[in-house]
Amino acid sequence: MEASATAAKPVLRVAAICGSIRKGSWHRGLIRAAAEVCEESIPGLRIDDVDVADLPMLNTDLETDGGRGFPVKLCHTVVVIHIKHITFSLTFPPAVEAFRARVRDADCFLFASPEYNYSITSPLKNALDWASRGVNLWADKPGAIVCAGANFGGGRSSYHLRQVGVFLDIHFINKPELFVWAFYEPDKYFDGDGNLIHAETRERLKQVLLSLQAFTLRLQKKD
Amino acid sequence: MEASATAAKPVLRVAAICGSIRKGSWHRGLIRAAAEVCEESIPGLRIDDVDVADLPMLNTDLETDGGRGFPVKLCHTVVVIHIKHITFSLTFPPAVEAFRARVRDADCFLFASPEYNYSITSPLKNALDWASRGVNLWADKPGAIVCAGANFGGGRSSYHLRQVGVFLDIHFINKPELFVWAFYEPDKYFDGDGNLIHAETRERLKQVLLSLQAFTLRLQKKD
Amino acid sequence: MEASATAAKPVLRVAAICGSIRKGSWHRGLIRAAAEVCEESIPGLRIDDVDVADLPMLNTDLETDGGRGFPVKLCHTVVVIHIKHITFSLTFPPAVEAFRARVRDADCFLFASPEYNYSITSPLKNALDWASRGVNLWADKPGAIVCAGANFGGGRSSYHLRQVGVFLDIHFINKPELFVWAFYEPDKYFDGDGNLIHAETRERLKQVLLSLQAFTLRLQKKD
Amino acid sequence: MEASATAAKPVLRVAAICGSIRKGSWHRGLIRAAAEVCEESIPGLRIDDVDVADLPMLNTDLETDGGRGFPVKLCHTVVVIHIKHITFSLTFPPAVEAFRARVRDADCFLFASPEYNYSITSPLKNALDWASRGVNLWADKPGAIVCAGANFGGGRSSYHLRQVGVFLDIHFINKPELFVWAFYEPDKYFDGDGNLIHAETRERLKQVLLSLQAFTLRLQKKD
Repeated sequence: MEASATAAKPVLRVAAICGSIRKGSWHRGLIRAAAEVCEESIPGLRIDDVDVADLPMLNTDLETDGGRGFPVKLCHTVVVIHIKHITFSLTFPPAVEAFRARVRDADCFLFASPEYNYSITSPLKNALDWASRGVNLWADKPGAIVCAGANFGGGRSSYHLRQVGVFLDIHFINKPELFVWAFYEPDKYFDGDGNLIHAETRERLKQVLLSLQAFTLRLQKKD
Repeated sequence: MEASATAAKPVLRVAAICGSIRKGSWHRGLIRAAAEVCEESIPGLRIDDVDVADLPMLNTDLETDGGRGFPVKLCHTVVVIHIKHITFSLTFPPAVEAFRARVRDADCFLFASPEYNYSITSPLKNALDWASRGVNLWADKPGAIVCAGANFGGGRSSYHLRQVGVFLDIHFINKPELFVWAFYEPDKYFDGDGNLIHAETRERLKQVLLSLQAFTLRLQKKD
Repeated sequence: MEASATAAKPVLRVAAICGSIRKGSWHRGLIRAAAEVCEESIPGLRIDDVDVADLPMLNTDLETDGGRGFPVKLCHTVVVIHIKHITFSLTFPPAVEAFRARVRDADCFLFASPEYNYSITSPLKNALDWASRGVNLWADKPGAIVCAGANFGGGRSSYHLRQVGVFLDIHFINKPELFVWAFYEPDKYFDGDGNLIHAETRERLKQVLLSLQAFTLRLQKKD
Repeated sequence: MEASATAAKPVLRVAAICGSIRKGSWHRGLIRAAAEVCEESIPGLRIDDVDVADLPMLNTDLETDGGRGFPVKLCHTVVVIHIKHITFSLTFPPAVEAFRARVRDADCFLFASPEYNYSITSPLKNALDWASRGVNLWADKPGAIVCAGANFGGGRSSYHLRQVGVFLDIHFINKPELFVWAFYEPDKYFDGDGNLIHAETRERLKQVLLSLQAFTLRLQKKD
């Protein structure tokens, strides 16, 4: 029956994270546009706009562990072998716990990543790091990146972010990439509040989201 | 006369910036060791340990500009051509102003850069970005990077930092690079407070500092 | 029935490409070891050791196109829109055609990638480029990277290769990564002919192959 | 006297290396333009257009060493400590020797670096590697990079090349960077033979050369 067929269709949750915390950010505008695009024309995909402005700067002293003060931050698989008799018990600040829950509940990720000085921004890196501590909550989920900026359209940040994704075990889609060359003609792409007003870019954003959806479904497929 | 000869020798100020803000950080330990090494055995080089823990997360809304709200963050040389009739007047939060003054007064830089998730840390990126806003205060000065960590000795962070340095116009020394493989045998390299206790690493750190000093003098040489 | 169940199991072909063309190469030794491991203990995975030593240096003058001499090398999706009325007809030198056929027939890829001067080698880059021309034959297939070397175990090359993979649309596994710190103790890891003789590294290599197999099956799964 | 003042001015030799070996290459066109610009308007700077098309693909079996067949390719400073009782004696193929002599005689370098599949080309990497073997001939000299291409103007290649430069000890200028967005409007920038015909780009190329000249003089300044 059609009703049950529709009901059975999974709704994928996309945790969308913006690397800029200023109000009129173009990148937040890209996330708002992504949410609209999903609602209007991509059944089965829903954007969860996750604010990272309130996260404290990562400082492992803010965590409470089992007592030994071991540098937990680097505890990946290989290392665990060497320290296997130690058990950790981390507690994060409330804003961090809330953020981590949103990452944990997501099926995949959309990063709106500005390029500051040829790399990713500190608020974005901070968010990436917090959700990786103890149990890495990004692991084995797909991701996509969208950028706006000057001469590379913000794109240098995307390649640094992809390298971070290797350790975090994020499966980034390769194509399409979205770089918005907004800096030289801001009024063509965004209004004063950072809303995306450029139809072609919106269409390209939709293609990114469709690719992310398809890759997520492909990776989630069960036997 | 010897006295005046000594007096004439320039004392170079190295602004040393640690990418970790936890108390027992190995990287802060590397900076303390660098300060000691300079004092003991490198005349003409002095470490200024610049704390970046108190900087707010970069948010351009915290700046006050001349009113237009232009995205100042990307105003590099090329761009200024396009916006040359606009004048900026930025005011930074006090902690940022204080930090910027230390960067402005430095002859060169030492970055103690941990690798978090295969890239630089958010506190370090945040500091780099704050001192680049408006007038880029890193410009045309030499820098060196030291890292400690796990399987690459923290080194992945150094290559991302070097790319940031292209835009910031930092002249990084190429050699020697210092990566400390401390993670697997922490007690060999650092004590519980993060103090460097490994003589060979201290000697390699000294070689980094001597190379930074030589490169700085070479680039400062006047006609 | 068990027999038919076994028969139905797909055998995945791994095109294995070595970035060094010298005879006693450790990296070729890693590929030989991978072939043995598959034969001995990974049903359903078979290594095809693809030699790239005979490929000419990439020169688009060696191709014959439809006449216009358009710079075909950059014809990705976005560009095709702009040149959609042009049809290409490329002919490659015989060694290139033979190589491209092996890539076309593969289900996934294993790159044994040495680090020369902090990046990938020219023979490997050359091979990557030849199979991307006209119809990109790497597209939408998984890949894995193994490295041996000095202080990063050859690992710097892997991150450059991963960036190449974004454009070629290779889905690299994130974990495990295999870096062999062979340079300082070569006799521990390889014999004089470049054969892998280190049991633990062989086991880690097997884990890479199992991860590649699992990711390939996951991405190939049909509705 | 003016005559002697002029005579005393050093003429710097720039070894210019093109990463594409096809005849109508834009990048070779950039090097021809650089040679013209130097001749016309930059006294003291002379381009030496070094062809790398005839270099064999790097294969250490082509070298003759002292007999032990040690993997010489990684013999950097740190390593030499471990193998200090071994002496090497390498002989290169004639084309390689000739190329190495041109690199040895240069004061600085200009790389015209196309982006193939998001990285540097194999002919360029091959050339970089050949001149680094045994005695690294790039060491401690300045360099500049110019790129032409599609959506990043060829620029992704420049960042990989800069990382190679860390190991080779090339001091790259940071600014200005030159990326030519030629792919979408080739006729605006280059004629059918790959000659640069765009006045503004020629002016920007001149600025790169002036910056390279200034940095070279600054680094060569003697006490």
